[in-house]
Amino acid sequence: MSSPTDSAVPAIDGVRLAATAAGIKAGGRSDLVLIELAPGTQTAAVFTRNAFCAAPVVVAREHLRHAAPRFLLINSGNANAGLGAPGITAARDCCAAVAKSAGCEPQHVLPFSTGVIGEPLPVQRMTAAIPAISSALRKDGWADAAGAIMTTDTVSKSASRTLVVDGREVIVNGIAKGAGMIRPDMATMLAFVGTDAAVDKALLQQCLNEAVAQSFNCITVDGDTSTNDACVLFATGASGVVIVEGDSAAREAFSTAVREVCEDLAQAIVRDGEGATKFITVEVAGAASENEARAVAFTIAHSPLVKTAFFAGDPNWGRILAAIGRAGVDDLAIDKVTMHLGTVCIVSRGGRDAAYTEEQGQSVMSQQEIPVRVDLGRGRSSATVWTCDLSYDYVKINAEYRT
Amino acid sequence: MSSPTDSAVPAIDGVRLAATAAGIKAGGRSDLVLIELAPGTQTAAVFTRNAFCAAPVVVAREHLRHAAPRFLLINSGNANAGLGAPGITAARDCCAAVAKSAGCEPQHVLPFSTGVIGEPLPVQRMTAAIPAISSALRKDGWADAAGAIMTTDTVSKSASRTLVVDGREVIVNGIAKGAGMIRPDMATMLAFVGTDAAVDKALLQQCLNEAVAQSFNCITVDGDTSTNDACVLFATGASGVVIVEGDSAAREAFSTAVREVCEDLAQAIVRDGEGATKFITVEVAGAASENEARAVAFTIAHSPLVKTAFFAGDPNWGRILAAIGRAGVDDLAIDKVTMHLGTVCIVSRGGRDAAYTEEQGQSVMSQQEIPVRVDLGRGRSSATVWTCDLSYDYVKINAEYRT
Repeated sequence: MSSPTDSAVPAIDGVRLAATAAGIKAGGRSDLVLIELAPGTQTAAVFTRNAFCAAPVVVAREHLRHAAPRFLLINSGNANAGLGAPGITAARDCCAAVAKSAGCEPQHVLPFSTGVIGEPLPVQRMTAAIPAISSALRKDGWADAAGAIMTTDTVSKSASRTLVVDGREVIVNGIAKGAGMIRPDMATMLAFVGTDAAVDKALLQQCLNEAVAQSFNCITVDGDTSTNDACVLFATGASGVVIVEGDSAAREAFSTAVREVCEDLAQAIVRDGEGATKFITVEVAGAASENEARAVAFTIAHSPLVKTAFFAGDPNWGRILAAIGRAGVDDLAIDKVTMHLGTVCIVSRGGRDAAYTEEQGQSVMSQQEIPVRVDLGRGRSSATVWTCDLSYDYVKINAEYRT
Repeated sequence: MSSPTDSAVPAIDGVRLAATAAGIKAGGRSDLVLIELAPGTQTAAVFTRNAFCAAPVVVAREHLRHAAPRFLLINSGNANAGLGAPGITAARDCCAAVAKSAGCEPQHVLPFSTGVIGEPLPVQRMTAAIPAISSALRKDGWADAAGAIMTTDTVSKSASRTLVVDGREVIVNGIAKGAGMIRPDMATMLAFVGTDAAVDKALLQQCLNEAVAQSFNCITVDGDTSTNDACVLFATGASGVVIVEGDSAAREAFSTAVREVCEDLAQAIVRDGEGATKFITVEVAGAASENEARAVAFTIAHSPLVKTAFFAGDPNWGRILAAIGRAGVDDLAIDKVTMHLGTVCIVSRGGRDAAYTEEQGQSVMSQQEIPVRVDLGRGRSSATVWTCDLSYDYVKINAEYRT
């Protein structure tokens, strides 16, 4: 059992954070975060599956293979992606600067970047900020860090759960950023989840994989998988509570807390999706396999026509039907398909339900949160995907992103 | 050899057309077309692969199996899709009304519909218009027909080629409609191509398949494959020129003319794409297979981030790189990838080209027609896809479509 934490993002023993404005973003906004992890902290991570993964993703993967991370260095405003070898060098140089300042090896530092692709990383400005940010590290820096990793996000995103194991409290905190180029295929843009539980690396990775599959990999804003996606889960062990695979109750409670934190963050990303005005839950049931259910749910969630209809509050359900029909389901028997918007049955036996009225559809579509439920009538598998609508502001934000 | 026809869409012996306003669309706009084909006309067709195909698609496929069509009845303003059995009955009733008026069998009539999905077809208004439209049939009705099949199209679409075989002239005419819900996976929304050549049904189908693969199946506006896509090619034989597989020169000239007409129509659909301000040609070369090249080209062409960057005229080429990276190419060696915008080399060896300047990118992006050329550096296959940008007006048109 876990419960939402009282304070927004409480401190976790073994984790200190700091944020500063290093001059990567314009306007003196906060854009550089350093997270320090106590010795002995175990860390798991997942990264983008985009073949053009950014330089920090390459370097972070490499460093994770060699050592347990002691520092995470995160910048917003520049993705350090699409730059070839100079990008790799830039990421390494930043890690080296942190290592020099802290007296550790560069392999103990993981770099993360998010922002514009294709512009050289301003390494000098970043390394110049390392001494100051290092001396500013403090346990209650989670909210500042959440703010400094934002790009087109309009709100910072954090979540926390508390669980009690054998009478002792364990905290799971998370922060994330992301609003556009969102269709994680392993993790979201950037998410950092930490706990004071003691968990070995293998179990930690397993808990992270399970949580990501049910959270960040179930959302889409625009179908564009980023080059920089990364999600990190670290466990300092400072609470003294040890989570092991064998103790099924504690393991279950812990993995539930991690999943819930990730779900909160993932849904917060969709709610803050670029230009989003509606939050849409697409549930596809009655599928022959989970992959089939996910394919149909994502086809609906990616359709620009479906998304503009949600923006307009127009129950133009034919567009959802058309999306189902082109989702690549072999031998779909359309007369078995039913569809509900909220509690309103719109399609039964593959066609407009006899009792459906435009007014009913209108009343659901005018809500801010809209559940779409499709039953394919061909099996027992299901999947749920969260997405948002497509508005004028999505176009505005992305047409003006670099100006 | 074929050449663009002088007059926009000349008459073809053996084909008569008429259009009228039957009251399906609001505002007294033309919305019903009847095309009469002379006895002996051979007809080939391709239809949408969307599982939720519309009732007229089901009925047209069925009628084509039983008889050579004598009439095509096309309405705009209502797709007759997503309605189950009543939709099928409605399509049959319309065919029966034409058959009764003309003294033929219902199987000699093919129905086509385009417009809103999920609204009952106004059969009575349509059948009431049949006598008048039948008596208005004339050989020079092509332009009127092109206008009456429009929905969100802002211009009507037609194309024509003339070829000379053994000293005798053959004409290939085409009309099409389409602006949104465009990602044909067999054919575009609706296209009707006619010729006065004499071609047997099997060869005609082969020519159509080849032409569609290189035209309508190479375009996308929004990635949404419609429920009503259909492309019909009919050959009246009235010119007396017989095209047979054996006569390779004439066969080649004829299939080239058909392909060019389809290409003209397909490109016209993209240029008139909902809200489109730019025409983008995405060419992917150096692929291991044509399917791989097409997958990469369509991933670029479907990316909302790429499309909004084109709208903004912003050389945000990192978004194109990110799209390539998530296109599902196994083991892509990113250091082999090069990318050009127009003649400007932006990416070489997987990263920003050393000589590239933002000004160069800007100058290409400010053009109305933008060629993107990607070389994956892993094979000899290539593919070309045509698309348009994503603008405020795409959202506006689709948010307000039914209001």
